[in-house]
Amino acid sequence: MKPSIPKGTRDFLPGEVYKRQYIFDTIRSVFEIYGYQPIETPVMENLSTLTGKYGDEGDQLLFKILNNGDYLSKADQSALQDKDSKKLVSSIAKKGLRYDLTVPFARFVTMHQNDISFPFKRYQIQQVWRGDRPQKGRYQEFYQCDVDVVGSDSLMYEAELVKIYDEVFYKLGIKSTIKVNNRKVLFGIAEYCGCTELFIPFTIILDKLDKIGKENVIDQLNEKGIDKQSVLNIFDCLDTTYNDCTDEHCEECGDQDIEYVKREFGDFADEICLINCLLVKFRDKGCDTGIQGLNEIKEVITYLKDTSFEGKLKFDISLARGLNYYTGCIFEVVSNNDIGVGSIGGGGRYDDLTSSFGLKGVSGVGVSFGAARIYDVMEELDLFPVSVQQKLKFLLIAFDEDSHTYAFTQLSKLRQAGISADLYPSPTKLKKQMKYANAIGVPNVILIGSDEVASGVLTIREMKSGDQSNKSIDELILDIQTTISVNDLYNSQKIDESDIY
Amino acid sequence: MKPSIPKGTRDFLPGEVYKRQYIFDTIRSVFEIYGYQPIETPVMENLSTLTGKYGDEGDQLLFKILNNGDYLSKADQSALQDKDSKKLVSSIAKKGLRYDLTVPFARFVTMHQNDISFPFKRYQIQQVWRGDRPQKGRYQEFYQCDVDVVGSDSLMYEAELVKIYDEVFYKLGIKSTIKVNNRKVLFGIAEYCGCTELFIPFTIILDKLDKIGKENVIDQLNEKGIDKQSVLNIFDCLDTTYNDCTDEHCEECGDQDIEYVKREFGDFADEICLINCLLVKFRDKGCDTGIQGLNEIKEVITYLKDTSFEGKLKFDISLARGLNYYTGCIFEVVSNNDIGVGSIGGGGRYDDLTSSFGLKGVSGVGVSFGAARIYDVMEELDLFPVSVQQKLKFLLIAFDEDSHTYAFTQLSKLRQAGISADLYPSPTKLKKQMKYANAIGVPNVILIGSDEVASGVLTIREMKSGDQSNKSIDELILDIQTTISVNDLYNSQKIDESDIY
Repeated sequence: MKPSIPKGTRDFLPGEVYKRQYIFDTIRSVFEIYGYQPIETPVMENLSTLTGKYGDEGDQLLFKILNNGDYLSKADQSALQDKDSKKLVSSIAKKGLRYDLTVPFARFVTMHQNDISFPFKRYQIQQVWRGDRPQKGRYQEFYQCDVDVVGSDSLMYEAELVKIYDEVFYKLGIKSTIKVNNRKVLFGIAEYCGCTELFIPFTIILDKLDKIGKENVIDQLNEKGIDKQSVLNIFDCLDTTYNDCTDEHCEECGDQDIEYVKREFGDFADEICLINCLLVKFRDKGCDTGIQGLNEIKEVITYLKDTSFEGKLKFDISLARGLNYYTGCIFEVVSNNDIGVGSIGGGGRYDDLTSSFGLKGVSGVGVSFGAARIYDVMEELDLFPVSVQQKLKFLLIAFDEDSHTYAFTQLSKLRQAGISADLYPSPTKLKKQMKYANAIGVPNVILIGSDEVASGVLTIREMKSGDQSNKSIDELILDIQTTISVNDLYNSQKIDESDIY
Repeated sequence: MKPSIPKGTRDFLPGEVYKRQYIFDTIRSVFEIYGYQPIETPVMENLSTLTGKYGDEGDQLLFKILNNGDYLSKADQSALQDKDSKKLVSSIAKKGLRYDLTVPFARFVTMHQNDISFPFKRYQIQQVWRGDRPQKGRYQEFYQCDVDVVGSDSLMYEAELVKIYDEVFYKLGIKSTIKVNNRKVLFGIAEYCGCTELFIPFTIILDKLDKIGKENVIDQLNEKGIDKQSVLNIFDCLDTTYNDCTDEHCEECGDQDIEYVKREFGDFADEICLINCLLVKFRDKGCDTGIQGLNEIKEVITYLKDTSFEGKLKFDISLARGLNYYTGCIFEVVSNNDIGVGSIGGGGRYDDLTSSFGLKGVSGVGVSFGAARIYDVMEELDLFPVSVQQKLKFLLIAFDEDSHTYAFTQLSKLRQAGISADLYPSPTKLKKQMKYANAIGVPNVILIGSDEVASGVLTIREMKSGDQSNKSIDELILDIQTTISVNDLYNSQKIDESDIY
């Protein structure tokens, strides 16, 4: 029998696990510095929790788990008679696999509302399953990586999540642009062109702008019944640029000249000017919701303006995010080195996460990281540090039985000092052992024969250069430990400052 | 609708996730120092991979995933007609949830034999699912934590795995005893009493010795057809103790006196004496397999004897391990502070991991860690460091809107320095903010009002003592950074020495 795995699933070899772990460790460390805490929910949820939350298509894509035991004895007999697969499901499958992390989180918050403190800041890095047709880059089993805060409508959290994006992508070495918009600004555009009753289809069509282009968007808007003048008005808003106020005095700011905006908002000055220009338009037509949306983005930028910022924040008026549950700020992150993977993160504010489980009035905001796409970007741009993929530093090689036992004691000393090391399992031919060293990519070998046993001085060879040096194991350990300067340690992401305060 | 989760599954709150993560991080760091690498396999495996590997009972307990789409159209019509749940399964469910990590590992090694180098040293920390009846301490979804090396029969790996056990439990603060035996020694006992043809039932009964006691074991052995004299012989072997050779010259060692054994084997001298005494018995009756088993244990101890060892290794002649696939050394770990959870780890050597997938002759040895039981032991003995459960070090509290924006910039400085900190989302009443600080258990708050904004000197209050100090944010950061002495850093498990060599 030739073994295989289900279509759309993957095995991960050590190199891949290490790289993904590096991404998750980086993200996790930032989350924790920002005060977010991890939760885990079961892989199996009741189907009653999942069904109806992802639309008809989602319900089709849920993986359902067959009830154990004599499941047919309790099956819906008429569905069985009619061979109605869809109708039969609920009577033979009570559980399903997690489809995303949002619905389980909403269930979690509702169930544990008395065990947690609000605002509740949580992150969750777990797998989800979807019965999509497997294709290149699309799998049935993949990780999601979500960070949310619920129970507060403070815009400080929007600013905080922008900072988290900025810090994570900076640490990973990905130069990125964080696009920000607000669903209320989009509503403002609908107000501006007088088509608020078509707001949802408008946002759904607008969401495709990047993919299908302006002409097709116009066609589709027309088809939906938005007339030509309205469409012109829409693009009058969307096409607002910073150039609209390059004159000395910004129209909106009145006597606040451009220089003032630049001084006050630094790198974010362009974004503020753009907001101000759109504010003028919205005020002209009394688009109150739109004005509120713009002021929200301004407040987020006000939080950010005096903090250090590594990447770029861009107010993108046309950013729509297809998901209708967003109600305030929305975000999307793209890599500045476009390798054609699309956005590597996204999220926004929602006002109604838990009401379907009976807990009303819980506002929240969250973003997620597209782990698989981040992986692809880093692979493409060669951003994974070598040390991530090669943990083992030394392979010991013994020439005879006695040397082998001795080598094991030397190996144990290295390991006890926290240095990743290994010993070839038998004192076989040098060539065979060196071949193994090469195959596993270890950077150094330590050769041990009867001379080394007698003197205690070992021969250390760097694989790449072939350079050799002679040291006792204690000297080698001391060398390694003193090579780590205090500075290196401070720069390391892995320093644990937990014991100080 | 009141939300719930399936029976036998669990949600994990942050405190629990942190503690479990601490256990896994500790284990993982030791695995990597010992040259083991992580792999991951899919949660969903083909049922053809899983079925028949865990016995009839196991097949019943597998969770099966209903095929997507119109699954009834391809269902076995006669099974459907007969309402035969068991027979129908294979035609409506192609996939199942992972039941353990061993079978997926065997499949993985077979599938990827050309992508990996042998000996292949892997670890795997993932969840598994079993449809057992849920009860206290038994769940349908739980983590397994396995470490194995395949493709070598060197006894060095047995010694290495013993060292891994020793180091992990030492790092976790669990005083433990690692019991070791060898299936060949058990076979030697069968040889000794002339019941080799009843070897399998003999080991299965012996495995229950701890639970049901000597009398019941004797009864069950008699029932299986092992006569009284043979049973006496069995216990003659099992009851062999170190006391049998307390005289000056060990019977077995001849002119090697006890003092020599003590000098040569140090802490392991008792074990060697026990082995020697049993060797005498086995030699008397020509129990060749048994002698081989004893020599294997001796070789493992020879590897270990000159390495530092924190816990206790105990040669336990009656250790049997129920699983029949073990063929050489077997291990089991118990906590010296017995809290009634049983073994916290176990494993051994197997000669035939992958042959059911078509890859013959791959010997391996591996052990696993009982993560849930380790968690319980650590919880019971209060072994989790406080820092594991409380990552957040500071909560900033602002008194008015302006202070709040200023506080955000100060917060950003702390976070940028890698210090976990947070800011209450709005400048509401002090009492409410302090109540939140208390609820989330943060050890320090930083109070910021208009005075602090003006002077840049913040008020830092330790929650427990109420002690206050006044510092600028830069002074505070410097204080924290210099408090981490170089020594602390060296002692930290989290030091990453990857960049040195």
